Amino acid sequence: MEQNQVNIFLVGTAGSGKTALTQAFNEWLKERGLDVVVVNLDPGVELLPYAPEIDVREWICVPDVMEKYGVGPNGAQILSADLIAVKFQEIVDILDEQRAQYVLFDTPGQIELFAYRQASKVVLEAMGEQNSIISFLFDPVLSSTPSGFVSLLMLSASIQFRFATPFINILSKSDLLGEDKVEAAVEWSTDFSALYDALLSEKYDMQNEANIEFFRALEGMGTTSKLIPASSKTYVGLEDIYNSIQQTFFAGEDTMPD
Amino acid sequence: MEQNQVNIFLVGTAGSGKTALTQAFNEWLKERGLDVVVVNLDPGVELLPYAPEIDVREWICVPDVMEKYGVGPNGAQILSADLIAVKFQEIVDILDEQRAQYVLFDTPGQIELFAYRQASKVVLEAMGEQNSIISFLFDPVLSSTPSGFVSLLMLSASIQFRFATPFINILSKSDLLGEDKVEAAVEWSTDFSALYDALLSEKYDMQNEANIEFFRALEGMGTTSKLIPASSKTYVGLEDIYNSIQQTFFAGEDTMPD
Repeated sequence: MEQNQVNIFLVGTAGSGKTALTQAFNEWLKERGLDVVVVNLDPGVELLPYAPEIDVREWICVPDVMEKYGVGPNGAQILSADLIAVKFQEIVDILDEQRAQYVLFDTPGQIELFAYRQASKVVLEAMGEQNSIISFLFDPVLSSTPSGFVSLLMLSASIQFRFATPFINILSKSDLLGEDKVEAAVEWSTDFSALYDALLSEKYDMQNEANIEFFRALEGMGTTSKLIPASSKTYVGLEDIYNSIQQTFFAGEDTMPD
Repeated sequence: MEQNQVNIFLVGTAGSGKTALTQAFNEWLKERGLDVVVVNLDPGVELLPYAPEIDVREWICVPDVMEKYGVGPNGAQILSADLIAVKFQEIVDILDEQRAQYVLFDTPGQIELFAYRQASKVVLEAMGEQNSIISFLFDPVLSSTPSGFVSLLMLSASIQFRFATPFINILSKSDLLGEDKVEAAVEWSTDFSALYDALLSEKYDMQNEANIEFFRALEGMGTTSKLIPASSKTYVGLEDIYNSIQQTFFAGEDTMPD
């Protein structure tokens, strides 16, 4: 892989807005004259709102896998995700030729196909874990209750532990939430006493010993990353994502053409 | 719901062995004269190795949803999972008539369809969170490396936080792992210094500040539950699961007929 190339993986639960954010961020980067390539890594997606430069469905596609291997939709999705590893060198070769500054990866609809299967390890190792960043999308509905927010924090932490890449947490589809909900979620990501109070006022059962332990545990790990609210509709937050990526890889140096 | 009825939800990542364990535990309980009903909650499963007393596919089935709503396999799985909430009262009514001692729920193939969608909240509230237990299956492949094991611990913790039910962690398909791997995983679940040493010897980058924080965090929360190795092939561990459930709900009292 090109030394200064940055690979951005958009990861999140089904419906969290990975594809829409891929499209919006791709356009945002291109409007600024930056050199971007988009890779669709979801073999099961039906319609894409953008035209990816590279599309894994040219090699593997869930409906074909269902037919070819005689498996149902469950099995075909897993098999397709695993087959990505087998075909991935061909994608790497194309990317090597293109030498883009930024490569955006739109990952499979359901998060575990990326997060907990071996193929994603192969993909990240091929792209270089230190040149890659995982953008974890917080679903806005789950993020609007304190206990849902905590579940997502832990899911995010689980994926952070699995991959040795830099990581950012994004509050996706922030336009769907009122300003107060957005502010609350951002506050919870940096201030655990606020999150604790919110859980109590949600009548979440913090008397439960295990839950108190979880919470203390979270306090140690969640504080490292401030949630970035972003919307692929209004483009709010896209600059913040860009700046955060620049900060991570280039210590804030701007790569935009003059 | 019947006062003393216990609802057992088998939850785990795709391929972790939920369906096979549902079948094995169902047979194990029935062989002991216990009154069990099995509910298949996976609208996308193609073939089941058992005949469930109640099958969600009678109401909702992924291939039909694909056709009826004109959506692809991704969208159909999500839509089907969400539709379970709408139909669930009908399942509750049937269960109320049957008055079984144990109800085993085989959940959708991909964990997030159960863990992070609203329908599962509806299901658990209808069944009674305090009469229900989530059995979280650790995939044997992920569990055989220390960093994979940590990811699963965190995923498990995330789900524990989301639901107010009792919880057990099971090392699934333990027959696929050598005895030393099984012993190691069980040790890691109760002894964090052993897990820490194993991470170091895996050359996992514990120098990374964030990873150290994660680990400290885990130390606070993971110790509460000892992993139970189980195999749906050899039936190893099924009695341990049963005993753990009895301990949770009846403080160890045996409900088996004499």
